[in-house]
Amino acid sequence: MIPKTHPRYRSLVTREHLATCAKTGIVSLEGLTAHGRGEAFDYLLGEASTPSALRAEKIAAALLLSARHPVISVNGNTAALAAEAIAALQQASGSIVEVNLFHRTEERIDSITRLLEKHGVKVLSGEVSRFIPLDHDRGLCHHDGMYSADVILVPLEDGDRAEALIKMGKTVIAIDLNPLSRTTRTCTLPVIDEVTRAIPHITRFCKEITEEEIPDILSNYTGTEFIRDALEYIRRKLQDVLD
Amino acid sequence: MIPKTHPRYRSLVTREHLATCAKTGIVSLEGLTAHGRGEAFDYLLGEASTPSALRAEKIAAALLLSARHPVISVNGNTAALAAEAIAALQQASGSIVEVNLFHRTEERIDSITRLLEKHGVKVLSGEVSRFIPLDHDRGLCHHDGMYSADVILVPLEDGDRAEALIKMGKTVIAIDLNPLSRTTRTCTLPVIDEVTRAIPHITRFCKEITEEEIPDILSNYTGTEFIRDALEYIRRKLQDVLD
Repeated sequence: MIPKTHPRYRSLVTREHLATCAKTGIVSLEGLTAHGRGEAFDYLLGEASTPSALRAEKIAAALLLSARHPVISVNGNTAALAAEAIAALQQASGSIVEVNLFHRTEERIDSITRLLEKHGVKVLSGEVSRFIPLDHDRGLCHHDGMYSADVILVPLEDGDRAEALIKMGKTVIAIDLNPLSRTTRTCTLPVIDEVTRAIPHITRFCKEITEEEIPDILSNYTGTEFIRDALEYIRRKLQDVLD
Repeated sequence: MIPKTHPRYRSLVTREHLATCAKTGIVSLEGLTAHGRGEAFDYLLGEASTPSALRAEKIAAALLLSARHPVISVNGNTAALAAEAIAALQQASGSIVEVNLFHRTEERIDSITRLLEKHGVKVLSGEVSRFIPLDHDRGLCHHDGMYSADVILVPLEDGDRAEALIKMGKTVIAIDLNPLSRTTRTCTLPVIDEVTRAIPHITRFCKEITEEEIPDILSNYTGTEFIRDALEYIRRKLQDVLD
């Protein structure tokens, strides 16, 4: 038991939850380490959504709403942390949800699908093929899912796959706390925020935005501006500590 | 299998090794997440020992060499990553090695002890008591180990315990990649470097330093200078990306 007096109580409880999910196979052991990486960047970003991240989340909502075939790709960590939030976003954005894993086994696909369904997510099922040109199982996806998608939301994605999806001509929205990761630098729109804050924000914007506002929201952004904002935020934070 | 073509191959292989160690109980599942946190800071620090970290490592060697009763506290992550390096440092510094765990079970203590012994570490055994005033099992330690120590090296320590040891009047050398962690801010000497680089550096300095040099090495340092150096390094790195 983690004592409630511990100053990092919330962070430790999340770690413990993920550890429990690792025991049931929802989260891979490597996923626990990846989560820790995110934690560190979240710490440097002040553990709150920055104004810049909120702007990215509004654009993400507009991209999903205006997509012909929007898909949300869910991995173990995302399912463990945000299954309910994914259900709400699916409903608000009309997206297809597909499970895609780095450490893929049929067993993990099944248990993650069950967890998502328990929280009200409709999960795409059926055959997968290596439609994404990658030399490992993350290349596997559904024909009616990511393969046919024009806009894909990938929370907690690996750089390799983000790159491959971009090369396939997809619009890729990533949720990634590391402003210097390949995912962040490669994707169309990096949402540099923690996944359990980012997804509900995107859902809220999906409900708030009117169709008339979409062209304006999408008219004027680049991925790099969000990277610059996040780096600048961290730099200023370090400067404050140094002063 | 992680493809060798993956740009983060080395980092992923280390994660995989730790995941294997988690399966055997050497590393706790929460330890995997903690490792990820360190990875992020290592990335920001350039994944190399900075000149400032090397200076801290030299001071750490001098502190261990001049101690009356030096102790190295080893947890699961340290054992998994650096058992052989700990053996070399024990020999070079004449330190007692004690196993101390956040997620403590007798089984984990046993398997970590066996791993360390396999790599040539002499591990202190026998009864433990709650000599360190903490409301969980990390308070447990050996009378002839940490309780009697004047200088304690704690790689990858939790802030709570670092603080408790300082309050007990110990000189605490921490190895921690997070320049803003409580451990780093609380300890006597923060070594802000990756554990598998830091320990061999300290060992080398233990062999190089002569007894006459020790007073000079120890005469003029504060913990905060190493924190400032690390923050300044990261700040400059971010500035370079921004420019």
